[in-house]
Amino acid sequence: MPADGMDRALSDLAAGVRRRERRALAKAITLIESTRPDHRRSAQTLLAALMPHTGGAVRLGVSGVPGAGKSTFIEALGMHLIERGRTLAVLAIDPSSTVSGGSILGDKTRMERLSQQEAAFIRPSPSRGSLGGVAQMTRETMLLCEAAGFDVVIVETVGVGQSEAAVAGMTDVFALLQLPNTGDELQAIKRGIVERADLIAINKADIDLAAARRARGQWLHALALLRAEESVPPVLLLAALRGEGVAEFWQAVERCLAHARAQGRFEERRREQALAWMWELVERGLMHRLRTSPAVRLALPETERSVAAGRMTPAQGAERLFSLMASAKTLPGTAGTCAGI
Amino acid sequence: MPADGMDRALSDLAAGVRRRERRALAKAITLIESTRPDHRRSAQTLLAALMPHTGGAVRLGVSGVPGAGKSTFIEALGMHLIERGRTLAVLAIDPSSTVSGGSILGDKTRMERLSQQEAAFIRPSPSRGSLGGVAQMTRETMLLCEAAGFDVVIVETVGVGQSEAAVAGMTDVFALLQLPNTGDELQAIKRGIVERADLIAINKADIDLAAARRARGQWLHALALLRAEESVPPVLLLAALRGEGVAEFWQAVERCLAHARAQGRFEERRREQALAWMWELVERGLMHRLRTSPAVRLALPETERSVAAGRMTPAQGAERLFSLMASAKTLPGTAGTCAGI
Repeated sequence: MPADGMDRALSDLAAGVRRRERRALAKAITLIESTRPDHRRSAQTLLAALMPHTGGAVRLGVSGVPGAGKSTFIEALGMHLIERGRTLAVLAIDPSSTVSGGSILGDKTRMERLSQQEAAFIRPSPSRGSLGGVAQMTRETMLLCEAAGFDVVIVETVGVGQSEAAVAGMTDVFALLQLPNTGDELQAIKRGIVERADLIAINKADIDLAAARRARGQWLHALALLRAEESVPPVLLLAALRGEGVAEFWQAVERCLAHARAQGRFEERRREQALAWMWELVERGLMHRLRTSPAVRLALPETERSVAAGRMTPAQGAERLFSLMASAKTLPGTAGTCAGI
Repeated sequence: MPADGMDRALSDLAAGVRRRERRALAKAITLIESTRPDHRRSAQTLLAALMPHTGGAVRLGVSGVPGAGKSTFIEALGMHLIERGRTLAVLAIDPSSTVSGGSILGDKTRMERLSQQEAAFIRPSPSRGSLGGVAQMTRETMLLCEAAGFDVVIVETVGVGQSEAAVAGMTDVFALLQLPNTGDELQAIKRGIVERADLIAINKADIDLAAARRARGQWLHALALLRAEESVPPVLLLAALRGEGVAEFWQAVERCLAHARAQGRFEERRREQALAWMWELVERGLMHRLRTSPAVRLALPETERSVAAGRMTPAQGAERLFSLMASAKTLPGTAGTCAGI
């Protein structure tokens, strides 16, 4: 008898996910990625039922500039893990997909060996919705993969804009994959991501070892200046295409996890991430509710023109939008239905 | 007869501000800094009446690390402007004031000569409320100073956290005051403020000219790497205590303004700032409304505990807060009353 009024189909789906059946997992992810309100409700019911079985995986985030060799590296790391008897899921957040509707990351054809492994599950980035919506779907897919019992979940993204901050905000260990180029560390500092990196790896070190060592030196110099009173993350050299440095990378990940666990920061980080995620949904949901209120939609263009032209103070503009939202019947907007927007 | 139902006292206050009477200006600012709902309404009425007379000043933001010599520099710049027949107001956003309730910036005693000038008006940072609230009060005070006919409004802040982003978001020219220290440019890049700087000045160059030139070189190198396809802002040397470089600084400000005006970016930036300000008020107001809803306040601790412990998905937590907010009678929260929070 399914619990909590969950219908038979959903409860079968949950059982299939728990048995790590690929069809069930794919179907559950499709449900999570749907924006239909009834699908969103079913997805939340499914997730609620699976929650007790989540949290068991190592959550690893991998970001890097375009061309850094992320797919090659993740494939090499995945094969390394599988050889050691581990299972893994590879997810992705592709910021370009929210613009183009296409998905370039997590592409199976780019991880040919890994995609043929029974112990691996590769899922491309959701290809619809805002970055916030895509990040939400990926977070929920990560929970499904954990309920399916994968040991490691890797979330891949490209080092552009807010997508890597989203990945750092949902993983236990966040790694930056870099190329041995001058100034790349400045770009990463500029993106505000350096203080969130637990691990930095300079890939393609085999092409020009001297350049890779110089890049490592620049990174260590910058990190020492930026993190005066904190511990500096390790900076490793990699040659992912040859598989060199991959074992050392995973050792560094495990040291990082052991260190965080010993200090109690592992669970603390997950708690903070869950709360930040809830507040992000609240904020997006509220803004969505305001923006979709019919009275606000009607008055918005003229209000924006008046504020831009200085005929109205910004506070008066905000006040007008508020009172229109309050006076109108608001849509039954919920966090669930907002997630895909 | 006062227009728009404005009472006599407010209309007298507006007239006093327009005549640049110090008492009226101080009283109007006090009204703007008050969090009492009736004061907030009066402040908005006053601002609305003064809006047609705003926008005429050059809005200059000055940020810098503690010890960079901001007060000394602003005093020297202010005296330079007054000697050339200009009037100016100096405002401040002090992020520490939102924690301690004290105000360290814009302190008259730190600008002794300038504070004695008839052509200058110095106002310390609002000392209550969140950073968002303090920024809002400073923005509105800037409008008052413009209505009072000051030629230049300088908004000072310290290079820490979000306060300098707030100042960059309310000024026409945003200048970073730096010291000739190694790594300071990395700290500024980390704060995400370098791409918003229109002008960089390295102060105290007289103490060690070689170090100052090295710092300038590092800045230009970093800027070239970060702004590959944009124009690089000028990097000047200053010795504010001796008044050296101050005239050149103002020339650079004027060149920057002339350039922006020629490209149509001056008005565009102000329009974008006004709209961003309105949306910030909307967002803060909505969150305030949710957080102050009695039902939400009651259920929040348990909801946060459940989400943090993984007993509830973040989406379920957000959903619960939404439905509680919708079911309860919401407070008559408005953008106006939220501004000081």
